[in-house]
Order: sequence, then structure tokens, then C-alpha cells
Amino acid sequence: MRVYFDNAATTAMDDRVIAAMLPFMKEHYGNPSSVHSHGREVRTAIERSRKKVAELLNTTPAEIFFTSGGTEADNTAIVCGIQTHGIQHAITSPLEHHAVLHTLEECAKKGMVKLSLLEVNDQGEINLDHLQDLLRANPKSLVSVMHANNEIGNINDLTAIGNLAREYDAFFHSDTVQTMGHYVHDLKNLPVDAIVAGGHKFHGPKGSGFLYVKKDKKITPFIYGGAQERNMRGGTENVIGIVGIAKALEIAYEDMDGHRKHVEDIKSRFIEKLKTDIPGVEFNGLSAEMDKSLYTVLNVSLPPSEENGGMLLFNLDLHGISASGGSACSSGASVGSHVLRAIGAKADRDSVRFSFSRFNTVEEVDYTVEKLKELYGVIA
Amino acid sequence: MRVYFDNAATTAMDDRVIAAMLPFMKEHYGNPSSVHSHGREVRTAIERSRKKVAELLNTTPAEIFFTSGGTEADNTAIVCGIQTHGIQHAITSPLEHHAVLHTLEECAKKGMVKLSLLEVNDQGEINLDHLQDLLRANPKSLVSVMHANNEIGNINDLTAIGNLAREYDAFFHSDTVQTMGHYVHDLKNLPVDAIVAGGHKFHGPKGSGFLYVKKDKKITPFIYGGAQERNMRGGTENVIGIVGIAKALEIAYEDMDGHRKHVEDIKSRFIEKLKTDIPGVEFNGLSAEMDKSLYTVLNVSLPPSEENGGMLLFNLDLHGISASGGSACSSGASVGSHVLRAIGAKADRDSVRFSFSRFNTVEEVDYTVEKLKELYGVIA
Repeated sequence: MRVYFDNAATTAMDDRVIAAMLPFMKEHYGNPSSVHSHGREVRTAIERSRKKVAELLNTTPAEIFFTSGGTEADNTAIVCGIQTHGIQHAITSPLEHHAVLHTLEECAKKGMVKLSLLEVNDQGEINLDHLQDLLRANPKSLVSVMHANNEIGNINDLTAIGNLAREYDAFFHSDTVQTMGHYVHDLKNLPVDAIVAGGHKFHGPKGSGFLYVKKDKKITPFIYGGAQERNMRGGTENVIGIVGIAKALEIAYEDMDGHRKHVEDIKSRFIEKLKTDIPGVEFNGLSAEMDKSLYTVLNVSLPPSEENGGMLLFNLDLHGISASGGSACSSGASVGSHVLRAIGAKADRDSVRFSFSRFNTVEEVDYTVEKLKELYGVIA
Repeated sequence: MRVYFDNAATTAMDDRVIAAMLPFMKEHYGNPSSVHSHGREVRTAIERSRKKVAELLNTTPAEIFFTSGGTEADNTAIVCGIQTHGIQHAITSPLEHHAVLHTLEECAKKGMVKLSLLEVNDQGEINLDHLQDLLRANPKSLVSVMHANNEIGNINDLTAIGNLAREYDAFFHSDTVQTMGHYVHDLKNLPVDAIVAGGHKFHGPKGSGFLYVKKDKKITPFIYGGAQERNMRGGTENVIGIVGIAKALEIAYEDMDGHRKHVEDIKSRFIEKLKTDIPGVEFNGLSAEMDKSLYTVLNVSLPPSEENGGMLLFNLDLHGISASGGSACSSGASVGSHVLRAIGAKADRDSVRFSFSRFNTVEEVDYTVEKLKELYGVIA
């Protein structure tokens, strides 16, 4: 059996997404910036994709900019948000993805901003009083807090954070890579200034992404070189990526509740079986609390074990099970997880992130727990 | 008849490139940063692609970094070249693509560098004495001069420019987007520090590109967020783009001479027929000199005409002929061409760039010249 439980790293593409992309690999090859017929038919596909994304997120096409992925979108929002709005102080959390954390650290290193890190507890919960204190002392900051954590799954309250940000005239960016396509984002009613997406996290193509920037918080470009994306991003558009991510988002919204139910069943069963079958099992962050964490992510902390110490992912892989130790978006397993360190996870326990999609089954859960029992010498 | 003569804007994908990409859309969907089997099979494909590109360009895999396209690669080389090497002065030409020109203008605006523009004559030839003067006055500059111009086709002598750059300890970046896959780049023997590619210019996918940076001129990342591309570019890799651009370059090198011969025949015939059939025809830049310009580009200057003034591209389009007025990489036609302005092209003449690929035929040339004759009221 081959089990793919690493969907927070990347998902398998939906066949309907591939089908939507193929015509733009073969027949429709024009450059969307060309004014002739070969170009116009491609331009139309791009603008239709932008309109679709905007509709699904309840916003306007002029606020959606396609990028090469979530990371470029995060870099753009942060670097150009700071530059455009003359921001001198930034606030983020130590649990952010490196796309946010490293980018802000680099901005601080270059002297563009002073950087403050939010306090988090050992469950990975952000201290909102601390956020308010920081904002009070530093109005007009950039605030960057992710919607949900890619490793431990904790969901942050974007409305509460956004309302605080507005109160102190801050620019609020949220890395929504893990929730896009899995949760509804209603941008007319969500107090955010910039959010992002990476297509491959919801069955779209790798190398596709988009950035939403609120109309009244416009920013300058990150990549210069042409009038593409309404002068916001130079470079010939990745047409198949754009068509693919829009199609993937459309499919995600068609039956989000159904998918959620399917994946929640998988996650609940996994939690139950682990609690029953693996003595001493624990869960990192809020990952086992169904209503406070991503339904797609379960971060399991396994008891100390001589056989598996540092080798658990390898042992699972031998049984055909693909999972991750921390974030696989960077070559996480080998360097350890900054998130688990920040919440003080015990170093003698092995942590595994299992992450799910609508392509997974409960049989895969049962198989995986069986293998974990074998690995931990639990007599059946 | 539908004729695509806009190959300098973008090319049709080769079926073999699509075939190479498809397995990474369907079966092999892992994240290359994941250490499990799903990830490893994809990591292997990326590193094999990097090795292939490096071999073809006679350099090492450690000097090749995949990007979202030529524009991102140009931005990276320029912005991070300046930042990493503490460069305070930059030299470029007014004929560069906006990916270079706008990026450097932005760097100058932000106070990162002082920017000097090279003198060019009315044929678009760069004054190398001026380059030497500027370098003498400003050693350790960044020099950015394109290999060949995307609008008028002029080929610059990278060896001469590179040797000057070396003499004055400059960082030499060349936008090689128009020559990559059409000419041999022998990086062991070419005195450049950074060159770039965009896959869609040589029958690869849009949204793919790479940057070469010479080992001893290493630069810091442009996009932060992960250990990808040897810590040089954060973000999950566009796997199909990487596999596609490497395959496209491989195909290009397999029979470059054959393709060149095929396209040169098309261009020569086009020049001959235009000279014979359209009284008063002229050519912009060095575009009609076969040994001094891209074999893929012919920039035609047509006599003043009441019927066609400003409408020529539109009229050609009505006959199914896709061509470009200036660079179609930006929505060129409508804003006019900075290149034609810089070489003082006459405003009362219509300029059309016809650009060719190995998928074009001489019949398409004959058809196009027939239509031009009709449009210009030339009696057959």
C-alpha cells in the first residue's frame, strides 16, 4: 500500500485541473500581451481566471494578482507593503512559514524595519494582548500572521487580529496558503489587506499562486519588467498555472463542505485510533482539537523510542507511507522544525505531521496506525 | 491561412516538451523538498534537469537556478547583484528589455545605484568606447547589456563587452532571453557573470526560466522562504516548468544548426521578397543583416500609408497573420516602442516585427508578403 499523507506539503492535481490546462499547452500558445488573435484568446483565459478567483473570494478582479506561488506572493506583500507605505515596524509570530519569517528577518537586516515577534504559548496560541501592546507602541506597523499553521494546524482568528490592526492603522498581511481552497475567504467582510495562495496546496499546479491586495492599500511591484498584472508583476504570465489555479479554486468551492466532511472523518478516526492503539501518544499544538485546527493537518508526538528515534519518517517511508516531520516546504526533516522548537516540543519525542486531502481514505488511516503499532512494538 | 510570426514574444510548445511534463502533472506529484518516496522521485527530476541545462551550457549545476521566467531571473541578477557586491554604479543601454531597464531605473530611484545609459547609434549599435569611458570612471559597476535585442534583433558582442567588464572589475549581466536555445552559450569561455533564460522563447513552457550566476560572483536570494534552489530561491518548485525548460533546451541543442538553417531560409526569403515587392521598404536596426542580427527576428519599416497608419497590425490580424509592433512582451503595440524611439525610427512609418521559429514555412512568408502588397496597394 502506498499512502500519501503529506498534503500540507503539496497535493495531487485534480484531473479536471489538468484538463483545463492542456489546451493552453497545445493549441493556445500566444503571448497574452500580444494584440493579435493568438494573444487575445490567451488574454481572455487569464482575465476569466482572475474574475473567477475574485468572485469566489467575494472581491474584485483588480485586487487579484497572479504570482509564481505563495512564497513570491508573501514576499511581494511584505517587501512592497513596507516600501510603498513607508512602514518602519513589523510584527509577526515565531510560528510563521519561512516565506514570511525569513523575508521579514531580511527586511530587518537591511534596516527597512524593526521587527517584533509575538508571544506564543506552548500550544502555539498567539498572545493577542501582546499584539495590542505592540500596536499601541508602534501604530502603522505591518502585521503578518498566518491564517493557519502549516505544521501544527492551529487556526488564528483573522477577524480579531485584523480588527486590532485596523484600530492601529496597520497593514495586515496573512499567509493563507494552508486555508485557501479549504475554507471560505469572504474578502468583503474579512479585515485583511493582503492574503495569498499557492495552487498546489489545493490540487492545482505547483508554480502557481496569487496575491490579493485590498484596493485602498495598493503596493508597488516586486518584479519589474512589463505591464502584466496591471503593471504589478513584470514577466510573461504562466498561463497554464493561472488557468490551473483558478480551476482548482473553482472545484474547491463547488463542494467545500463535502470535502471537509470527508477529510474530518479521516482526521477524527486517526486521532481516535492513535489514542486507543499507541500508549503515550500526544498531539502538538491544537492539532487534535477539531474546531481549532486545520481539518487537513494532524501533528502527532510519539513516545521516545530507541528503534524510531530520528528514523520514524524513514521507517514509515519503508512501509510506503509519506508523511512529514514539520514543514516539508523546506527540506524540513533534516534541519528540524522552528515551529516545534518555538512551542517547546520535547526533543526526545518524534513528531510526525500527517496531512490529508479528499483523495485519502479511512483505509489508509487504518493501515498507517497498524504500521505505527508495529514500529512501536505494540502487541495487537 | 493563419500565420504565427510572433515567436520573439512566445513560441508554440514542442510536443516532446509537453510529453516530458505530463508525468509530473499526473503521477509524480510529490513536493521535491519532501524526503519520502513521493518527494524523492520529483527531486531527482529537478536535479536531472539542472544537470542537463548545465551540461548544454558547459557549466556546473551549482551555477544554475530555476526561476519563474526570464524577467524574474533578470530582476534577481540585477537587484541581488547590486546588493550582494555593494555595487554603486550601473551601466546599461536604452535598448534593453523593460525587465532590465525598469529594474535598474527602480534601483536608481531607490538610491541603490547611479545609472548611466550607453550611447547607441541609429542602427542600435552600442558605443563600446563609451562603455570603456564609463567603466574607467566607475570601476566595479554592474554592466547589463542584452545578448540580442528582442525588437530589432541586433546581436551584441558579449565577449568584447565581457572583457571590458572584467578589465574594470564589473559584474556583467546579460539578458540572453532571445538567444537562449537559438545560439550556443559556452559558459566556460564566455566572460559573463550572469545570464538568463525564459523557456517559452524556445518552445518550452511559459512561467519557466533560469538564472546562471558564475560561482565566484554568488548573490543573495531575491525571494525568501525556503531552502529550495540551494537556498537561492524560496518557494515550492514549478516542477513541470523545470522539466519542460530543460527538455526544450535539450531539443534546441540537438539540431540547432538544422533549425537555424530552416529559419534563416525563411528570413532571407522574406527580406528578398519585401525588397522586390514593396517599394520603399526599409528595415530597423541591423535586422536585415543576416550575420549581425537574430535569425529569428526581422523588423520591417513600411512606407507612410493612409490606409495602414497605426492600423497595420490590425489589418494583418484580419488576414490571420500574427506579428508585433515592437516588443509584445509588454502590451507594446499600444504604448509604442522605446527601442524604436531610441534609434530614432521615423514616426510616420509603420514598423512590424516578424519573428520566426522552426515551425514556420516559406509558404507563410509568401502569403504574408502577398497580403502586405494588397494592403499597400501594390499591383501584382
